[in-house]
Amino acid sequence: MTKKTSSPMKESPLFWPAEIKGGAMHVLDETLIPEKVKYIKVTTAREAVKVIRDMKTRAFGQFLVVLNSFLLELNNKKLSDKQLVQRLQTTAEMLNKSRPTFPFAEVTSVVVMWAQAALQQKQDVRAFVGRNIQGYLMGIRGRRMERVQNIAKLIKNGDSVLTHCNVSGELAMAAALCQQQKKKVKFFATETRPYFQGAKLTLWELELVGADVTLIADNAVASVMSDDMVNKVIVGSDRNCANGDFANKIGTYQIAVLAREFKIPFYVLTQPSNKIKKGSDIPIEVRDGNELLKFKNKRTMPKGVEGFYPGFDVVPHTLVTKTVPIEAGA
Amino acid sequence: MTKKTSSPMKESPLFWPAEIKGGAMHVLDETLIPEKVKYIKVTTAREAVKVIRDMKTRAFGQFLVVLNSFLLELNNKKLSDKQLVQRLQTTAEMLNKSRPTFPFAEVTSVVVMWAQAALQQKQDVRAFVGRNIQGYLMGIRGRRMERVQNIAKLIKNGDSVLTHCNVSGELAMAAALCQQQKKKVKFFATETRPYFQGAKLTLWELELVGADVTLIADNAVASVMSDDMVNKVIVGSDRNCANGDFANKIGTYQIAVLAREFKIPFYVLTQPSNKIKKGSDIPIEVRDGNELLKFKNKRTMPKGVEGFYPGFDVVPHTLVTKTVPIEAGA
Repeated sequence: MTKKTSSPMKESPLFWPAEIKGGAMHVLDETLIPEKVKYIKVTTAREAVKVIRDMKTRAFGQFLVVLNSFLLELNNKKLSDKQLVQRLQTTAEMLNKSRPTFPFAEVTSVVVMWAQAALQQKQDVRAFVGRNIQGYLMGIRGRRMERVQNIAKLIKNGDSVLTHCNVSGELAMAAALCQQQKKKVKFFATETRPYFQGAKLTLWELELVGADVTLIADNAVASVMSDDMVNKVIVGSDRNCANGDFANKIGTYQIAVLAREFKIPFYVLTQPSNKIKKGSDIPIEVRDGNELLKFKNKRTMPKGVEGFYPGFDVVPHTLVTKTVPIEAGA
Repeated sequence: MTKKTSSPMKESPLFWPAEIKGGAMHVLDETLIPEKVKYIKVTTAREAVKVIRDMKTRAFGQFLVVLNSFLLELNNKKLSDKQLVQRLQTTAEMLNKSRPTFPFAEVTSVVVMWAQAALQQKQDVRAFVGRNIQGYLMGIRGRRMERVQNIAKLIKNGDSVLTHCNVSGELAMAAALCQQQKKKVKFFATETRPYFQGAKLTLWELELVGADVTLIADNAVASVMSDDMVNKVIVGSDRNCANGDFANKIGTYQIAVLAREFKIPFYVLTQPSNKIKKGSDIPIEVRDGNELLKFKNKRTMPKGVEGFYPGFDVVPHTLVTKTVPIEAGA
């Protein structure tokens, strides 16, 4: 049971990293954190694709960038309703191709469907789609807030929680909630090579809310587990399947195997996306291997060698203790 | 059976990273590789301890630095035989304290024993100890060369071998031997955070001998194993126990667990050190957590957070398929 608290929960900038202000989208540049908190101004869907492809934003941020990209297109008042629907279809196709593992098409197809329905029913496409996207966004926001409460319920006084990569604000806000509830909780974050999302984002936002957090190398997971230093694993997911398999940042699979080896419960925050049947059907993005060979754009590795960089891996459902879905009450 | 070949095997600089030349010890600065191949000049045992503690050398390099440190002390012609024995004892104590996980005392105690025996038997301590250390070094060199042959025997045509951290020249030389034997072999090296020994040393030396090598993040081990991209794991060890447990670079334990999960044979190059009964008796070095928070001496992580950096982990013998000892014929 969550205690009612009067003070508002601290919100992590990663919880809602993109929004429209003054006719432009402002996207938190996650690659600059923790050094700088800076927003990239995006005015077209084409720029939005670049932001996604360059991994300036990721995970939930991609979802926000996609929906807000459509809102930007609605601003083009010169297009007729029919032209606008075509434009939204083109925008959807472009966004769908930006990165393979995130279920872009599942989000963009909803928007295109709204636009087509409005056109058929001779409604104002611009107003109808705009209203629906805004409502969709607010609904998601509310459901994420509810999930923060559910994550906090999972975490007991005295727990030591290992996490991997970054779950876009929710874990940090759950940590803040645990503090309000007077639970003493320790967090371990993996570095999450090669992008260091754990070291940069998760550490930063957990520190921001005043949580007790320790960084470990991705290599130290078996070590801290075998030494009883963690008793729970909580990770996010980038894509979920109907059978419970899920894709998440590379390294999640091995943490799941190790959690079972050391009998540690493994919890997953799932996405409302289960159009894919099983894990082997998820397209896995293999990023440019050179990204492994550079640090801050300087090549640090020997010439001639190659890097292999799958961005995600798929965890079989058999390794999952419990899922924490985004849907309220589910 | 290894085919006899006429051309000499390429020797990796990491195979013999420290030796005495012109009255001083020259230690390969492994932290500068792959950018530079530079040797640090060491003239006293005190300087040698610093080289070890700062991790300028590691693994087998530590063994060479220890033995060569004693040779440096023998150069001090002003000491009487009795004073020399005392000096060697002090040197041993200092070296033993340099880092906890490597079995320094097992090496240094042999040298001190030689010195004491020479003194008792009224032999020239300087000459006796010097000759013994030289003989010991040459013996080790020969046995390592034999192990290179044994490693090459383990590797079959078409194999894809995953390795972690760096096994000080032996794997690269085995790779060179495999090429002479016309075996087609692929290598995968983990980055090995936080020091990147895999990315810097293993990649560099495998590339140097012309092997086919690919770098992966430490996070990608389960991914490449589950995708059947590797069919063998070969790792070194920093300390071995009588029961077969061993300590090695942090991350080795989880690779061993994953190898069993994916039914991939797991081979270990063992040290001639089994005075310790079982893994839980091995002292594990926990290095300064700040080392995780910096990259090339620049702090890249948020302020206020902590790092936890165990340098090694212990692999239970039950996860080992086969050991490749340093002893010839063993």
